[in-house]
Amino acid sequence: MSKLVTKITDRDTDFAQWYTDILREADLVAYSSVKGSMIIRPYGYAIWERMQNILDKEFKRTGHQNVQMPMFIPESLLNIEKEHVKGFAPEVAWVTYGGENKLEERICVRPTSEVLFCDHYKDIIKSYRDLPILYNQWCTIVRWEKTTRPFLRSREILWQEGHTMHATAEEAKEETLRMFKIYEDFQRNILALPVITGKKTEKEKFAGAEETYTLEAMMYDGVALQNGTSHYFGNHFAKAFGIEYLDTDNKLKTPYQTSWGVATRMIGAIIMTHGDNHGLVLPPNIAPMKVVFIPIGKDEKVLDTINDITKSLKEDITYQIDTSDKTPGFKFADAEVKGIPIRVEVGMRDLEQNKVTLVRRDTLEKIPVDIENVSQEIEKLLPQIQQDMYDRALKRRDSMIYEATDYETFKKETKEKNGFYKINWCGETACEDKIKEDTGLKSRCLIEGEKITGPCLVCGKDAKHRLYVGKQY
Amino acid sequence: MSKLVTKITDRDTDFAQWYTDILREADLVAYSSVKGSMIIRPYGYAIWERMQNILDKEFKRTGHQNVQMPMFIPESLLNIEKEHVKGFAPEVAWVTYGGENKLEERICVRPTSEVLFCDHYKDIIKSYRDLPILYNQWCTIVRWEKTTRPFLRSREILWQEGHTMHATAEEAKEETLRMFKIYEDFQRNILALPVITGKKTEKEKFAGAEETYTLEAMMYDGVALQNGTSHYFGNHFAKAFGIEYLDTDNKLKTPYQTSWGVATRMIGAIIMTHGDNHGLVLPPNIAPMKVVFIPIGKDEKVLDTINDITKSLKEDITYQIDTSDKTPGFKFADAEVKGIPIRVEVGMRDLEQNKVTLVRRDTLEKIPVDIENVSQEIEKLLPQIQQDMYDRALKRRDSMIYEATDYETFKKETKEKNGFYKINWCGETACEDKIKEDTGLKSRCLIEGEKITGPCLVCGKDAKHRLYVGKQY
Repeated sequence: MSKLVTKITDRDTDFAQWYTDILREADLVAYSSVKGSMIIRPYGYAIWERMQNILDKEFKRTGHQNVQMPMFIPESLLNIEKEHVKGFAPEVAWVTYGGENKLEERICVRPTSEVLFCDHYKDIIKSYRDLPILYNQWCTIVRWEKTTRPFLRSREILWQEGHTMHATAEEAKEETLRMFKIYEDFQRNILALPVITGKKTEKEKFAGAEETYTLEAMMYDGVALQNGTSHYFGNHFAKAFGIEYLDTDNKLKTPYQTSWGVATRMIGAIIMTHGDNHGLVLPPNIAPMKVVFIPIGKDEKVLDTINDITKSLKEDITYQIDTSDKTPGFKFADAEVKGIPIRVEVGMRDLEQNKVTLVRRDTLEKIPVDIENVSQEIEKLLPQIQQDMYDRALKRRDSMIYEATDYETFKKETKEKNGFYKINWCGETACEDKIKEDTGLKSRCLIEGEKITGPCLVCGKDAKHRLYVGKQY
Repeated sequence: MSKLVTKITDRDTDFAQWYTDILREADLVAYSSVKGSMIIRPYGYAIWERMQNILDKEFKRTGHQNVQMPMFIPESLLNIEKEHVKGFAPEVAWVTYGGENKLEERICVRPTSEVLFCDHYKDIIKSYRDLPILYNQWCTIVRWEKTTRPFLRSREILWQEGHTMHATAEEAKEETLRMFKIYEDFQRNILALPVITGKKTEKEKFAGAEETYTLEAMMYDGVALQNGTSHYFGNHFAKAFGIEYLDTDNKLKTPYQTSWGVATRMIGAIIMTHGDNHGLVLPPNIAPMKVVFIPIGKDEKVLDTINDITKSLKEDITYQIDTSDKTPGFKFADAEVKGIPIRVEVGMRDLEQNKVTLVRRDTLEKIPVDIENVSQEIEKLLPQIQQDMYDRALKRRDSMIYEATDYETFKKETKEKNGFYKINWCGETACEDKIKEDTGLKSRCLIEGEKITGPCLVCGKDAKHRLYVGKQY
């Protein structure tokens, strides 16, 4: 790919432009003639493939099976569950013609697939022996967003959606939390995202769900990114669709349902949590390439040394050797903008002293290493980088969590600084609405395990919950 | 899943119903409320995942990268290449509304993505250094078919589509044939399909292509299934889209293009080539589970023996142990209908003689084996089954290839028996049209390496080609 000198706007000057610059310079996405849709380029897609591989193994390990549902939903099917259709109908893409022929009933491209799964469950669930049903699908969904940004909010979204059915409410609730925990572990340990987790308020929960658990990641600019959700539905979808099973006691019962999903949005979270003015910074555990070797000069010994080092690397340490005809300076910049965790510079001057130079992408620190220790050092450094990235993100996140106790001060503060505000809350939607109106902030999630420290921030009545509020992408 | 006694229509009595019965009884697909779309159930999807894994490795081995293009094509973009739009516009699904708002320009769901890739190539191809571009995507496409059958012809198709750009026509032609060969090897060696391969005629080639190479599989009933294609486009798409690169000689040139794809249709080909009256028969190399162990009776020694055997199996021999509370008879039938290549029956009566019984799914032959030899026997038997399935399919295919030399006889014969008819052909579309009109048969592909044996079967003029014609799914 032809490329000019990397040009990335300063992160603190214009964060939105910085984000767009990284998308372009790191070859993650490209824009297309299709408004609101993006092209995911090979490097961006490789990150998604790695996410898929890791999560898919976790889903299968916990007994889930992949299936594929239709991508279309007839309007009448979407209409069956009232809350659900209210939430989604305003933002679906409607197909009205097949070739030259007007369709008798218009169909939408799935914005999510609860109704399709329920329509299928109605046919395949007959007996307690058929439960639980633990299905997942990897697919594309469409939501007709007005303003779009690649990975954060686009009309077309690559994601996975798990949909499960259980004999009892307890089992369904356990499943909701099991998958939520898998997401949390994945985002913390693989993506190095110190996500805040908790339950959504009534107002913010998924259309049709009884309970929605959310992963809230805080971006560099203090704005929240909802980065995955797990829903418990109770049995009202099942009731609306007439799904019943014959239990061991020979009685017909209605099963309980969950759904859960994460999307390519996670790539956006990585960029906006870890990226810097030099480009993307990828946590080693998710990087498609963990190491890049850059030969300096054309001496045979340089390439020989690189080949020797790569032979001694453990198999799971993916690497590339940049032998293109660009200058070393260009290659350094390219490795930096793509966020490859470790760059190994190998040149004759170092080799004469039996050394090569390792460069950590996260800190840009240069580490001279004796040749015989390189693979060992790389193995040691990768988990260190992973941990350091998490720790830095956690520290930054915590520095932008504020306690709000006075509404007027809160209104003023939210204009001055982004972040998550902890508040005491009475539990009424009216107070959430007022916060939204006055500040643009929305509820992120309820805070578990913290004592209420005062009355409701908004109305002054008795508080029932501790709550995070914040701006969102 | 609750299941009654397996009920499969006799294959020779009603082949279409037999196919539908297998789809249902082997838990491959289910029908949905969405007309013309299917639900791919876990067992069917596991077969597709295995196809994806094997092919994706081959694509990557040959230097291809995965990307994701938008699923929508604006009408104006589809219109850019004239032949292409003529071929596809009559069968696309048109989105006309986003939420409540009528779109300014209608967009279709991609029926294939040449124009989307070209639209992107226009932006990223600048110099000879950018070539070749070797992209692939795994996705869903939509073609608004009037009559549909799961896996064979559905409105929604899961497939992969490779799209590549090259500096020269020669390189693009090489790529077209390279990927065609990968498909051929995959279908022969993994799917045990003795595909006939060759070039499509002008009339039958892909809309917009210069050359289309096709894999034609013959189904049990003698009807052809086009089971994958590879296209050489020349540079006229590139010209239509204004794609140019600066070559080493400092001149602007137009690159050359290919595309190639295979789909879930391959699952249909497996069913209709290898299936029998007991159900699906899966070639070992594509079966998600190669072996199923069925314990007979509740004696502890039975399960112990099974566990011992599985421990000595090589890692790539996937297996399951059916410990459900069904009867052995039910389990045998279930293993048969699902086409698991080897069933191992383990019961006390056999164990007392130090034996277990292996049952080959393809022949239903029962093979008593000493316990200590089981894993070895399984390892030997799997490639044998694979080879035997291929050989049988090949023999059957060859028994349904006929030579046609007299048009009236040909017309009469095609009414009596399906198969591939070899003919001599003048090369004129008019003669293909006449065959279609008189018999319903279409050209499958040109026959390479055979001498012309007479005049054109239809018009009697000098023949230029040997050609396969046949009915198609």
